[in-house]
Amino acid sequence: MSRLVMKFGGTSVGDVERIRRVARLVAAEREAGYGIAVVVSAMSGETNRLVDLANAAGEGLPAEQFDDEYDVVVATGEQVTTGLLALALRAMGIPARSWQGWQIRVASSDTHGSARISDINAGEVAAAIDAGQVAVIPGFQGVTEEDRITTLGRGGSDTSAVAVAAALEAGRCDIYTDVDGVYTTDPRLVPKAKRLDKISYEEMLEMASLGAKVLQTRSVELAMAKRVPVRVLSSFVEPGHPNPGTMVCDEDEIVEKQIVSGIAYSRDEAKLSLKALQDHPGVAADIFGRLAEANINVDMIVQAPSRTEGTVNMTFTVPEREADRALDLMTSAQTQIGFEQIEVKKNVSKVSVIGVGMRSHVGVARIMFDALSKKGINIENIATSEIKISVLIDSSYTELAVRALHTAYGLDSA
Amino acid sequence: MSRLVMKFGGTSVGDVERIRRVARLVAAEREAGYGIAVVVSAMSGETNRLVDLANAAGEGLPAEQFDDEYDVVVATGEQVTTGLLALALRAMGIPARSWQGWQIRVASSDTHGSARISDINAGEVAAAIDAGQVAVIPGFQGVTEEDRITTLGRGGSDTSAVAVAAALEAGRCDIYTDVDGVYTTDPRLVPKAKRLDKISYEEMLEMASLGAKVLQTRSVELAMAKRVPVRVLSSFVEPGHPNPGTMVCDEDEIVEKQIVSGIAYSRDEAKLSLKALQDHPGVAADIFGRLAEANINVDMIVQAPSRTEGTVNMTFTVPEREADRALDLMTSAQTQIGFEQIEVKKNVSKVSVIGVGMRSHVGVARIMFDALSKKGINIENIATSEIKISVLIDSSYTELAVRALHTAYGLDSA
Repeated sequence: MSRLVMKFGGTSVGDVERIRRVARLVAAEREAGYGIAVVVSAMSGETNRLVDLANAAGEGLPAEQFDDEYDVVVATGEQVTTGLLALALRAMGIPARSWQGWQIRVASSDTHGSARISDINAGEVAAAIDAGQVAVIPGFQGVTEEDRITTLGRGGSDTSAVAVAAALEAGRCDIYTDVDGVYTTDPRLVPKAKRLDKISYEEMLEMASLGAKVLQTRSVELAMAKRVPVRVLSSFVEPGHPNPGTMVCDEDEIVEKQIVSGIAYSRDEAKLSLKALQDHPGVAADIFGRLAEANINVDMIVQAPSRTEGTVNMTFTVPEREADRALDLMTSAQTQIGFEQIEVKKNVSKVSVIGVGMRSHVGVARIMFDALSKKGINIENIATSEIKISVLIDSSYTELAVRALHTAYGLDSA
Repeated sequence: MSRLVMKFGGTSVGDVERIRRVARLVAAEREAGYGIAVVVSAMSGETNRLVDLANAAGEGLPAEQFDDEYDVVVATGEQVTTGLLALALRAMGIPARSWQGWQIRVASSDTHGSARISDINAGEVAAAIDAGQVAVIPGFQGVTEEDRITTLGRGGSDTSAVAVAAALEAGRCDIYTDVDGVYTTDPRLVPKAKRLDKISYEEMLEMASLGAKVLQTRSVELAMAKRVPVRVLSSFVEPGHPNPGTMVCDEDEIVEKQIVSGIAYSRDEAKLSLKALQDHPGVAADIFGRLAEANINVDMIVQAPSRTEGTVNMTFTVPEREADRALDLMTSAQTQIGFEQIEVKKNVSKVSVIGVGMRSHVGVARIMFDALSKKGINIENIATSEIKISVLIDSSYTELAVRALHTAYGLDSA
């Protein structure tokens, strides 16, 4: 029997009526012959309620005295959903039982609040599934070597699902969500955006880390590493109705490769420019070392000659919410680093075109620059990878840029 | 270091502010030199909310398909409280951690929803306590041999606390509740009721099973079997203020024995009378066998001669909510059992006087009958044990009877 993992997020299990719909979706796949594990999140709102309680009770505690018991409190949200779904399945005549993280067991690191799954001992669960029972497993949970409860951090349930699929050697991991698949770009911005039938792990990883919020980045990394085929599909479609979703899979399985598969964007960007920076070895290491120590993520680094002899201009982007902190950090170390002036620009967006086809095609970047130029959009920074070109532009042009690129790369639906 | 178990019910941990007060009470006892385990219930209202969810998800399921996952859902209520209290204690600078039932472990039977604790392996917890850490333990929870979560049934947290105290060889188990101790009778009924400083296990057991709701009957049984001194006291008193409560302890430790320690009553009674019942061996076994099979609790059985030759009248009481079911059961088997007529009387109360002193004193019953007779109260049935006399009377005389007996046995406070 082929095993299938189905994952449902918080809104999909938000009340008992929705949990029953999930049970119907599970029943249909079981009817189709799969051996099934279901991974569930906490009912929507529950995690926030529990986080608030923990924050109130542990007010003022440093993380190392807070996170383990926070996990004890917050992990109960998923546990409740597993019990309820097992009951709803049984009420439909389907054998089912819940398996908590410590029962399976889902071994994790002891970094409470943001633990990483290290191993899943799924032997007993696999046997139960093969005997026809649906296994209902909490996402987001793990257990340390010392038998303490951990949580994986927000969005960790996608990662749990992929890890369970890998441990069960499942043929597929279906992530049910509130959209019906992965789109060529954000459909709220571009009505002509198309659902993709397939997308490669590498592309999905770029899309996820560039702001498309369909899947958690870590879950895509894990799926790619373990070669777990992941399908993203809608949880709001009743069984029996078409719901193809998007397959996230190995590049080799995609026959009709597009040069560009999707356009991602992020408004949460700020650009910092260090003018007339002393140009000597180690200066970049100094700057980015300071930012890394302060836990500030840096992106799109560009170094260019300046008008002053012996100096350069250095620009980079940080998440907008970190901009002020980054500015303070640089300013307070101005003499040590050695620059004349610093500028911050907050109203910038990063727009990226992504596609594995770029590897074998030339002229991909030119299409991008032409399309933006025709709309009179100025490019402030450029960063590229093997399968991605990102540009930094003025925020007010975001929609215009995304729509123009969507058309230029032939992604508009008929 | 002497170990102490402190138990707090749902209203005592109803919100984060109350959990902080619990933490202050724990801090004061720790300051006094005790090594402490705290046993907590779910925050008030939580268990009901979780039960409702489970009932909705598992609608229509028979108990054997419902109870195990019901336990998975409902046990989370206590887990949340343990994490929150551990955090609140740490926020006051007190080392603390939570221990779930499966971590300790609290081994129980697999009768989900009403499991019985079979063994507690408290070695690791005891070591942590002796090292100065407060152990926060969920009441109500256990784990089966197969590692499945169980709950002990409503009110089970008292029993958990006593079991933990026995396993830790604690010097005392303090049950904090919304009253400040055990009273000679219900203070809402008799304003002159007095708080008892001490009461024996046997007396407390009679009080508990006769309707005084201060402690769960099973917890008193367990305390008596394991010789755990239990103290009942108020959770609404700030540390440093007098809060002596009532000690439930061995009879030998009570120096000044009262003949009668308390008066209990129960309005939840109904009397069934079978008239002109065939008087042959096995007829009582037949009647009470049928009632036992239907899970109906029977009390105060009296058999008396009837006017018809070769027959007797048989009366007994059942809980009022079971009266109709008991009547149907008897009526449907009328020819097999062999009786002429059946009568049900619902408005009856059981009033009981309890005291270990009865063993060595004569005339205790006479005081009761005299006092009731003087008030013109008719006695419908009488049942006695070594340390208890119960009478069944018309419900409308309940308050009058309890007050008269309280005075007659010299229990009124000055």
